[in-house]
Amino acid sequence: MRTIEWRGDHAVLIDQTRLPQSVEWLEVGDVDTMIGAIQRLAVRGAPAIGVAGGFAVALAALTGRGPDHVRTEAERIAAARPTAVNLSWAVRRVLAHLDDGADAVVAAAVELAEEDVRTNRALAVRGAELLEELLGAPARLHTHCNAGGLACVEWGTALGIVRAMHERGSLVSVTADETRPLLQGARLTAFELVDLGIEHRIVVDGAGPSVISRGLADAVVVGADRIAANGDVANKIGTYPLALAAARAGIPFVVAAPESTLDLGTASGDDIEIEERSPDEVLGVGAARVAPEGSSAMNPAFDVTPADLVTAIVTERRVIRPAAGERP
Amino acid sequence: MRTIEWRGDHAVLIDQTRLPQSVEWLEVGDVDTMIGAIQRLAVRGAPAIGVAGGFAVALAALTGRGPDHVRTEAERIAAARPTAVNLSWAVRRVLAHLDDGADAVVAAAVELAEEDVRTNRALAVRGAELLEELLGAPARLHTHCNAGGLACVEWGTALGIVRAMHERGSLVSVTADETRPLLQGARLTAFELVDLGIEHRIVVDGAGPSVISRGLADAVVVGADRIAANGDVANKIGTYPLALAAARAGIPFVVAAPESTLDLGTASGDDIEIEERSPDEVLGVGAARVAPEGSSAMNPAFDVTPADLVTAIVTERRVIRPAAGERP
Repeated sequence: MRTIEWRGDHAVLIDQTRLPQSVEWLEVGDVDTMIGAIQRLAVRGAPAIGVAGGFAVALAALTGRGPDHVRTEAERIAAARPTAVNLSWAVRRVLAHLDDGADAVVAAAVELAEEDVRTNRALAVRGAELLEELLGAPARLHTHCNAGGLACVEWGTALGIVRAMHERGSLVSVTADETRPLLQGARLTAFELVDLGIEHRIVVDGAGPSVISRGLADAVVVGADRIAANGDVANKIGTYPLALAAARAGIPFVVAAPESTLDLGTASGDDIEIEERSPDEVLGVGAARVAPEGSSAMNPAFDVTPADLVTAIVTERRVIRPAAGERP
Repeated sequence: MRTIEWRGDHAVLIDQTRLPQSVEWLEVGDVDTMIGAIQRLAVRGAPAIGVAGGFAVALAALTGRGPDHVRTEAERIAAARPTAVNLSWAVRRVLAHLDDGADAVVAAAVELAEEDVRTNRALAVRGAELLEELLGAPARLHTHCNAGGLACVEWGTALGIVRAMHERGSLVSVTADETRPLLQGARLTAFELVDLGIEHRIVVDGAGPSVISRGLADAVVVGADRIAANGDVANKIGTYPLALAAARAGIPFVVAAPESTLDLGTASGDDIEIEERSPDEVLGVGAARVAPEGSSAMNPAFDVTPADLVTAIVTERRVIRPAAGERP
């Protein structure tokens, strides 16, 4: 199942805010609707919002209002969310075809989606081979947020590795953090794991590190939203504590991401802009307010894991070992 | 405000499951009702469930069914929750007065509650002095779960230190983890901080470690449910990641607990029984199911922070420095 695709003159995508209770598809025929879908996380996950951004540029090109209009729209699209570098990367790539006409722009956006599927599959096999080599026995993996097919066009990055290991017979089970505030783990990763028939348990985010310290996980596998030139990794808030716990327990902490997530123009994690989202996501759960009136919240959407805690970054082309001193 | 107290022939306690939306008091006149209140966390927090356990023994004594009945009931009461050592400690202490008659048992239970208030105040001042000495400037503190007046009879342990520093002018602000699954931070700690007029922000549990790594907290202060002879600390699930982050950031990780939380009969954290609660607390939020059908969950209520990550344990009598090699 593709979670986002192009249909002639518009995009369709699964509304991730409604999962797992309801599987609904959105038809997106204009730039504003796509920016809205990206900002309210109807489409989310670094690779998927890259593809959504490419489709949005295609929608701008199809308006026939000319290259200057498309360039202005492209800036708005690239700024829809700040942390995942894939979004601006995809927008730039599709925009490069502007001089060849709207059809060429659409073709470039569609090719980007196709490429994401190929990239994921290559990355997943490489990651599975790496973990099989590192662990030497069927593994219990721990993951955070959702870096599955829903975060991409199909197949997934971190969850792509899980899926590949499941198919290869080298996976025992998965522990998935629920991933507050928006519960992408409990909603989306669990949805995919049920669908794939993979044995799994959900834990609250605070439990991840002690699941690791108690010896209940053999490795941590997560996605990434931006990887700096020094190997620091920005990913969903709550990733860093898993890396600390994995380092202390001496188990591998593996980041799965396409090459497009590497941002060599950003020197280190200190230079990565961390999106601050609405306090309401923290002060309540869904529509229900939990905290008392008078309380406020801080809601950073991502954290930065320093390179020395990252055993390996697996891309579609290579394995980089930041903890051993290698740099992207 | 006392959150639990004795009134003639029964106990009254605030129903913590209804806070902060509603402030409701429960009248508890028999052992079964008190055990139920402890198990569904209507009364929670290690010192408070100790006092509740003492009151439950008093209720058993008042039935007039004799010493053997009280001893049998005491065993059930002490087993209501496994991790906090204060519960069995309090039950034993009150039970020691059984030969002197029911009135003596009641008096011992009431004295235990009075003692908790004195203990908290002494501990809070000692903890405030320690943090002022360690930090040398007004501090931004990070806390987890609720170790406030609601977790005790009055005043609080970790939040008692916060309150003492606020009154002494050495506190800037507090960051409080929401503390899934039951949101004691967003509900109870926030409720107390609003009440005390202390500036604070709530964060999701996954954000705590990066709040620390970004330099937004000067120290971590938490309570404890059981402290082993080697200085390992069992506390609410999600405490351990804060200790890992504090150690890496080089800021103090301080545990506030009465002497009754020290369990010298337990050698290390490995020997502490960790309560496993219902998966339903994780699979949904409140009454609403979040995870898909087919998913299961693991729900450990506590984690263990190893002694080498604990800068100091502050009790009503002393400061112990486990990270420096001191043992309780």
